[in-house]
Amino acid sequence: MRFDEAYSGNVFIGSHPNFEESEAVIYGMPMDWTVSYRPGSRFGPARIREVSIGLEEYSPYLDRELKDVRYFDAGDIPLPFGNAARSLELIEQFVRRVLDAGKFPLGLGGEHLVSWPVIKAVYDYYPDVAVIHMDAHTDLREHYEGEPLSHATPIRKVADLIGPTNVFSFGIRSGMKEEFEWAKENGMYIAKFEVLEPLRSVLPKLAGRPVYVTIDIDVLDPAHAPGTGTVDAGGITSKELLAAIHEIARSDVRVVGADLVEVAPIYDHSEQTANTASKLVREMLLGWVAK
Amino acid sequence: MRFDEAYSGNVFIGSHPNFEESEAVIYGMPMDWTVSYRPGSRFGPARIREVSIGLEEYSPYLDRELKDVRYFDAGDIPLPFGNAARSLELIEQFVRRVLDAGKFPLGLGGEHLVSWPVIKAVYDYYPDVAVIHMDAHTDLREHYEGEPLSHATPIRKVADLIGPTNVFSFGIRSGMKEEFEWAKENGMYIAKFEVLEPLRSVLPKLAGRPVYVTIDIDVLDPAHAPGTGTVDAGGITSKELLAAIHEIARSDVRVVGADLVEVAPIYDHSEQTANTASKLVREMLLGWVAK
Amino acid sequence: MRFDEAYSGNVFIGSHPNFEESEAVIYGMPMDWTVSYRPGSRFGPARIREVSIGLEEYSPYLDRELKDVRYFDAGDIPLPFGNAARSLELIEQFVRRVLDAGKFPLGLGGEHLVSWPVIKAVYDYYPDVAVIHMDAHTDLREHYEGEPLSHATPIRKVADLIGPTNVFSFGIRSGMKEEFEWAKENGMYIAKFEVLEPLRSVLPKLAGRPVYVTIDIDVLDPAHAPGTGTVDAGGITSKELLAAIHEIARSDVRVVGADLVEVAPIYDHSEQTANTASKLVREMLLGWVAK
Amino acid sequence: MRFDEAYSGNVFIGSHPNFEESEAVIYGMPMDWTVSYRPGSRFGPARIREVSIGLEEYSPYLDRELKDVRYFDAGDIPLPFGNAARSLELIEQFVRRVLDAGKFPLGLGGEHLVSWPVIKAVYDYYPDVAVIHMDAHTDLREHYEGEPLSHATPIRKVADLIGPTNVFSFGIRSGMKEEFEWAKENGMYIAKFEVLEPLRSVLPKLAGRPVYVTIDIDVLDPAHAPGTGTVDAGGITSKELLAAIHEIARSDVRVVGADLVEVAPIYDHSEQTANTASKLVREMLLGWVAK
Amino acid sequence: MRFDEAYSGNVFIGSHPNFEESEAVIYGMPMDWTVSYRPGSRFGPARIREVSIGLEEYSPYLDRELKDVRYFDAGDIPLPFGNAARSLELIEQFVRRVLDAGKFPLGLGGEHLVSWPVIKAVYDYYPDVAVIHMDAHTDLREHYEGEPLSHATPIRKVADLIGPTNVFSFGIRSGMKEEFEWAKENGMYIAKFEVLEPLRSVLPKLAGRPVYVTIDIDVLDPAHAPGTGTVDAGGITSKELLAAIHEIARSDVRVVGADLVEVAPIYDHSEQTANTASKLVREMLLGWVAK
Amino acid sequence: MRFDEAYSGNVFIGSHPNFEESEAVIYGMPMDWTVSYRPGSRFGPARIREVSIGLEEYSPYLDRELKDVRYFDAGDIPLPFGNAARSLELIEQFVRRVLDAGKFPLGLGGEHLVSWPVIKAVYDYYPDVAVIHMDAHTDLREHYEGEPLSHATPIRKVADLIGPTNVFSFGIRSGMKEEFEWAKENGMYIAKFEVLEPLRSVLPKLAGRPVYVTIDIDVLDPAHAPGTGTVDAGGITSKELLAAIHEIARSDVRVVGADLVEVAPIYDHSEQTANTASKLVREMLLGWVAK
Repeated sequence: MRFDEAYSGNVFIGSHPNFEESEAVIYGMPMDWTVSYRPGSRFGPARIREVSIGLEEYSPYLDRELKDVRYFDAGDIPLPFGNAARSLELIEQFVRRVLDAGKFPLGLGGEHLVSWPVIKAVYDYYPDVAVIHMDAHTDLREHYEGEPLSHATPIRKVADLIGPTNVFSFGIRSGMKEEFEWAKENGMYIAKFEVLEPLRSVLPKLAGRPVYVTIDIDVLDPAHAPGTGTVDAGGITSKELLAAIHEIARSDVRVVGADLVEVAPIYDHSEQTANTASKLVREMLLGWVAK
Repeated sequence: MRFDEAYSGNVFIGSHPNFEESEAVIYGMPMDWTVSYRPGSRFGPARIREVSIGLEEYSPYLDRELKDVRYFDAGDIPLPFGNAARSLELIEQFVRRVLDAGKFPLGLGGEHLVSWPVIKAVYDYYPDVAVIHMDAHTDLREHYEGEPLSHATPIRKVADLIGPTNVFSFGIRSGMKEEFEWAKENGMYIAKFEVLEPLRSVLPKLAGRPVYVTIDIDVLDPAHAPGTGTVDAGGITSKELLAAIHEIARSDVRVVGADLVEVAPIYDHSEQTANTASKLVREMLLGWVAK
Repeated sequence: MRFDEAYSGNVFIGSHPNFEESEAVIYGMPMDWTVSYRPGSRFGPARIREVSIGLEEYSPYLDRELKDVRYFDAGDIPLPFGNAARSLELIEQFVRRVLDAGKFPLGLGGEHLVSWPVIKAVYDYYPDVAVIHMDAHTDLREHYEGEPLSHATPIRKVADLIGPTNVFSFGIRSGMKEEFEWAKENGMYIAKFEVLEPLRSVLPKLAGRPVYVTIDIDVLDPAHAPGTGTVDAGGITSKELLAAIHEIARSDVRVVGADLVEVAPIYDHSEQTANTASKLVREMLLGWVAK
Repeated sequence: MRFDEAYSGNVFIGSHPNFEESEAVIYGMPMDWTVSYRPGSRFGPARIREVSIGLEEYSPYLDRELKDVRYFDAGDIPLPFGNAARSLELIEQFVRRVLDAGKFPLGLGGEHLVSWPVIKAVYDYYPDVAVIHMDAHTDLREHYEGEPLSHATPIRKVADLIGPTNVFSFGIRSGMKEEFEWAKENGMYIAKFEVLEPLRSVLPKLAGRPVYVTIDIDVLDPAHAPGTGTVDAGGITSKELLAAIHEIARSDVRVVGADLVEVAPIYDHSEQTANTASKLVREMLLGWVAK
Repeated sequence: MRFDEAYSGNVFIGSHPNFEESEAVIYGMPMDWTVSYRPGSRFGPARIREVSIGLEEYSPYLDRELKDVRYFDAGDIPLPFGNAARSLELIEQFVRRVLDAGKFPLGLGGEHLVSWPVIKAVYDYYPDVAVIHMDAHTDLREHYEGEPLSHATPIRKVADLIGPTNVFSFGIRSGMKEEFEWAKENGMYIAKFEVLEPLRSVLPKLAGRPVYVTIDIDVLDPAHAPGTGTVDAGGITSKELLAAIHEIARSDVRVVGADLVEVAPIYDHSEQTANTASKLVREMLLGWVAK
Repeated sequence: MRFDEAYSGNVFIGSHPNFEESEAVIYGMPMDWTVSYRPGSRFGPARIREVSIGLEEYSPYLDRELKDVRYFDAGDIPLPFGNAARSLELIEQFVRRVLDAGKFPLGLGGEHLVSWPVIKAVYDYYPDVAVIHMDAHTDLREHYEGEPLSHATPIRKVADLIGPTNVFSFGIRSGMKEEFEWAKENGMYIAKFEVLEPLRSVLPKLAGRPVYVTIDIDVLDPAHAPGTGTVDAGGITSKELLAAIHEIARSDVRVVGADLVEVAPIYDHSEQTANTASKLVREMLLGWVAK
């Protein structure tokens, strides 16, 4: 993790060398120790940066170029392997420093639990924040086999903190019955299976509000994102996910932070998932920060 | 293969430990010796069970849970490697015992030829059975390079037995000209390329009838099911296949048995095909047995 | 098994053994030395032929069989590794000989730069030729990091030769801003993101004209073609690409040559891309040559 | 984890169905959350069991058969993902129960840290125990980037507990300078690079003593064990490791427990590492328990 | 590139185009249907030919070149999938024709059962033939789970036919106790674990006799041959296997036929096994045929 | 390529940030366009750096630490894809600048042809230089299929420049007959198959001389280095190659530059080859530069 010294690592294509002069900060959260199924997302941020060298810097979707926005790549936050509680503290500290400096935090996971300390920090700065959550999984458990710090719990923690009516989930196709019921009883919005159409109906209601967007790459169908820990059939295409990012970019919400999590290179035999993730990051930068 | 003793193997998630008390029986048919192209589906049933531990037990599609249905996992039927004729006999014997006990047979392949002895047994119990067949391939050959027992022949054998007008194929995008012509001349229904729309038009005509459903995983596009012996471009998505299962569940047919065949783990580098298959099995249990 | 006849090892399924008697000639251009990202497409033609043995010879899309068209498989053109200029000369010489003999050239790449000498030769024979280009990338650069012979430049060279208004690109989702602007300023047609709908509107305008079609396999989404050098999310499905081939087949243009490039087997872990390519070749033969 | 109920999982070939009647207990410790490099060994025990079905039950090395020894397979100990401290407690509890019952514990990892609670328990029962440690790495750190519970620390913890002069490491080819110095200063035995020859000189000195053997699969060269988290060139062959197991079997030490750790299936593309591990387990059972 | 001559697609490098004029005949036996574990060796012969293009034609071991020997590549014998009995008949017929023509049969497998009909034919021509067998496995079962035609039985069939004292096995490290006992009781030679040293002591005893050599690629350690159905740790290196071939070449036996079996490309992720096999074939041609 | 500005890329572990203050310079030569077989070594240098983070900084072989030597990592030299002549010029220019500054050049390939411009530059500075060459292949061709700039020619060019009696090849097991004969006739030393023993006899003769060492990773057996373009069975182990590096380090020659080439990550499924290469680089730095 760095702020001003020269960084000798792998950076996202087109990154600005100076933290102070940047509008956004890309940072990695290389944690995967609470996952219940296949680990490996700790290497996600590094691989996304690495393959970003193959990206064009221009978006024909948004007709903007990466040079139109200044973003700093802070590298990966060094996290203590196997210590979830301490890792979350370190993430929160880092993000607070980014927010203190008035910059847009754009985080790369890592497992989905990393979004929890990020949103905790964001909520302090934007108490009226709404969260847009795209995922295959509800992630609404209170604990997982007894552990409250689990990759199955982050959205529940977020809902408990900012209020369930401020959380909007899209593309959900997996979860326990109790999770869906809890959402229903508590007024939390869940769009099952689909992303784009329900997003079009939700966005107008959020007009003018600050919004944090958290995207679990497994909202994509396994055909489009085989490189993730928990694949689940019946998801959306990468074309639809790109359209969702552009829909938000064209709406009247104000995106104040975002993350993209759960890319796991070891299951990504042709590097297609990492390539897709790096394209999504480009569109998030051009659509939500350069806006 | 077992009926009442304790089984010390890999079982499908949520299986009931007792054969007698179960409504359905999951069983594997680990045979792949007549395939003309890439073998390996013999390991399909074991891998589907193994990855089933990652499945949620609740279906947000059907709003049912696996605990709502009692199914026994009988393991794989031990088959003599390389002896097709004897393997088919053993499968038929096993399925007859399941049917004798009044239970729903849910078979996992293995190559598609395994469906032939299963349907032969089912036909004895349900002489008015119709067969719904989802596949990339017609499988209507009389023999393959001289061999009548081949993975290219099962649907022809079925059609000859129960009558071609009782067989309904969907999603077909590959076969010999003669196979399509035979189907046409004999009144057998073939929906080329598509599954969901033609299924919606066929199901009402089968209302009230017992139906056996055989799904070759390669009805899915290779993007959705790379882990199979014979991939063929231009297939349907896993979302469409899930919808087809639900369409049958909501219809007025009575599903009396089913199978899912041709999952070949060795070509399934991210285990996405096996994961998809285990989700399909869950939906079949909840949609067709729990019904 | 053979004893004295010629052995037909690795050739595209159903090839005719005699050049003179054939209408079309399949040939490989195993060159990948100017690619800026991942090499490996030099092995594409050989793998496409190899997996073609799994193809049915009948097309249920077009209701034609491979025996309805006579095509010769000339093998791969031997090219000097690492010498781009000489390789392009050899390709051009070969294609001129095919055209001299009045046959349809159907080339397999290799990197996209190989299309440039082919189209140069075709243009000599058909001065009113139009080029239909399906690709994820514009390929309109004048040079790439100083090199005019680069996989990023072929369509620009073609446009400069035959005139930009005679080039029609479809499915483009990646390129530099300058490339899109150059196309606009020079009247070259680019359909962003989509293939089928824009093709339907363009084809009538080309009625009666000779057309050369060049397909970069990466016009497909990475889900449908992981086995290529430069994957880019948001592409079309193989179903759509098949439909585009059939749309051209049914139109009033006269296809006078075609190629399919950038299949790279090393990234194609389940051989799905090579299988898809061999099916596309079959449909091109049946739709464009047998026509 | 089970003791007497029927277990419905994947078991090591030839396992005895009853805990009470068995001499040895195989158990999995599916933990990999403190590893600093590549995770995935949590799936090691399951894969070793799965491929064990391909093992012959007879050892031509020892001229014994698996039926000559009774061992129970207790499955994997359920461990809380991402909670290292609690996981180690659960492992220790389990092993104490095995030792209470007078049985030989044969553990499968998981990361190497799992050996620490096992040896802690063993030490209580055998206060004069010596530890034979085969590994590429010293594992002698006091902490790793601040964390005392890390996969880089277990042998240090063991040495601190039972005394460094009672720990004998073999095959070591990687570590910090300070680790090698600490060993030297404290009288701990380290054989660098080699296993068999130094073992032959150490074993006579341990005659009559109880010995616990912990084997990290990465003591093998990456050529022989690619499927592990941290590969390191210059290791021994599987032939040498088999010979080392047999050397111990023929010696006058009394092996009272053992483990084999760090098999990570995701990096084991041909399953050779898992197959090798299952053969090593067979030889450990026949050489050390059946003895 | 060709226009009118015959195209020599996938043949072993340096093959002679004419059967009659050749001294040796390479042929593939693409059968894998009786294997009890992992299938896939049906594609072994094709892949060995394919990678042979990377081979140098000169052997620095033997100081000979492939042009010093004339061998014809007959391609793969077409075998009926899943019909073991008929496949063996077809292989035998083919080999008889090769032997009738006075040529050296050099077969490529396929599973090891294919050696049985070959040796049956060879025995007719050379009643005093001895068989040298290099393998990890005894292959001495009478039947496998009831099937007499199984990949676990070929050497037993050979021993029953030509007499156990005429069979010499090397490198064996896996089998049932009964198989080793049967060999001992019947005077069949088995060298456990090692190949080169025991071969040096056996060869002088066979001086002047015709010898058939059958090599199962799994005699190599999995490190040297991951691409095979049944990997087994503790094998020999490829350097030792090359030395064994050369030892036979320099001895006074007369090799009258040979095979190399069980290469399975699907498990051979870097093609190292197929490359090794093609080098072994070159040394067999130069050492045993050119002799 | 850089000399003094801050570098924002992936660097070898423990690199010194300043060019001027360093004794050695690591640099990548990402070129693979003249290879005749499998390309991909262009990504070798980047992957070697990336996995170097898993290396211990201490060598138990040499009892030295990376902090004992100052080396700068200059990144990869940007090379024009597909232009071999220009690439070689750029490499030569870079190395001259390193030598001008009195530093040790430690190059990472890329294909073996990259060694040619390096040695050309080194020869200018050290006219009495001898070259130690470890490789599976002779690389002594004058041209390859007509191309003088080919990966099969670099050692011939070197021998022509510095005199064949000053070139010493080890471990060679593949080449054309003419290459071996040329070496013999011209007094060039070639040790076939082995490295360590012949090296021990050659080194004393080179005492006091400046020596450049070029290592092609394929001198290792494919078991130890599957991740390379042209695998060839019968090679040495990584243990032997490490010993060879140490043998040179302990000898009386003065190593003035070195390279390690032909690591190709795409064929390196468990990253074992890249890991081995990074360990070899560490030992070269500690043995040859820190000396």
